[in-house]
Amino acid sequence: MAEGRLFVISGPSAVGKGTIVKEIMASSTDISLSISATTRSPRAGETDGVSYYFLTKEEFKEKIDNGGFLEWAEVHGNYYGTPKAPVEKLLAEGKDVILEIDVQGAMQVKESGGEGAYIFILPPSMEELKNRINNRGTETEEAIALRMSKAAGEIAYLDRYDYYVINDDLQEAIDTVKAIMVSEHQKINSKSETLLAKFKEVK
Amino acid sequence: MAEGRLFVISGPSAVGKGTIVKEIMASSTDISLSISATTRSPRAGETDGVSYYFLTKEEFKEKIDNGGFLEWAEVHGNYYGTPKAPVEKLLAEGKDVILEIDVQGAMQVKESGGEGAYIFILPPSMEELKNRINNRGTETEEAIALRMSKAAGEIAYLDRYDYYVINDDLQEAIDTVKAIMVSEHQKINSKSETLLAKFKEVK
Repeated sequence: MAEGRLFVISGPSAVGKGTIVKEIMASSTDISLSISATTRSPRAGETDGVSYYFLTKEEFKEKIDNGGFLEWAEVHGNYYGTPKAPVEKLLAEGKDVILEIDVQGAMQVKESGGEGAYIFILPPSMEELKNRINNRGTETEEAIALRMSKAAGEIAYLDRYDYYVINDDLQEAIDTVKAIMVSEHQKINSKSETLLAKFKEVK
Repeated sequence: MAEGRLFVISGPSAVGKGTIVKEIMASSTDISLSISATTRSPRAGETDGVSYYFLTKEEFKEKIDNGGFLEWAEVHGNYYGTPKAPVEKLLAEGKDVILEIDVQGAMQVKESGGEGAYIFILPPSMEELKNRINNRGTETEEAIALRMSKAAGEIAYLDRYDYYVINDDLQEAIDTVKAIMVSEHQKINSKSETLLAKFKEVK
């Protein structure tokens, strides 16, 4: 029954998905975090294969051509993406994999046939999301308005997801994501044959 | 978002579903347990509307004719069933309802269109189920063989359920059922419109 499962966790920027994922990772050794590939230069303290897989543009483009990414995007002249092979290897080993990703990326993963549980992290309200963006204190009013309109556009994809979790109380949000992860493993779906075989041996 | 959900918990006799349900009920006041109706006489200490709804055969048959049961069965000349109205009332009030029921009853509820999460409690193995039946110490060998063959027949319905939970470690089984109950409330399904409306008010 050891069967890894992919959990795609996304939501608008500043909703707190990074913190939720970090806490879940810290609480379990059975879960792996998908590592992104990028063509940008490593910053101080970043290690290849831990922070990111650092690739040259040529390597990245070749990987795109070979269908080596679950999703990828070009941002300000650099490429970012989720390499397919490491995720598939972990799943085959029976490990759960978390992919923390923006909505556009999550939709790419889904369209490329990435089977998994898609979880959307929501703010308690749009007002509260605005507060959280404001609290970072680094944004101009124009930038905030842009982020808010981007967030609204992302939330419109909610019905393409399997689950939603409202990040009001952080610990409650973490526990709820964990419950979804437990529950997903208990789904019968295509497993019933394997399960039934186990109980065929009536003595 | 207050929306009650029906959890149908079933599995073979002696698998421990009664204990699991009792522990879940004890740990939460937000969950209601569906109360069965029966035509058998009340035993000492049993209260109408708490232990069972005690009905006459005439009342019971009239209720059957009026489609008043989610499921019912005749056992040794007495009728047992799950009245539809109290369950629907609780769900409408936003309460979760647990229906602990044998596989035959669960399949009747499902066929009558009872929307809910169907959870099958499994033993760790058929050998262990036999041990648990044996440990009750009240059964002849023939009765045990009959129960085992009945259990095997019930487990064959596994693929009609949404979730399975193996009752090996009791506390783990309880926690897993609880996780499924939490997770079911986070499903987006038909909720996305209500959710989206909430986030339409971008300020």
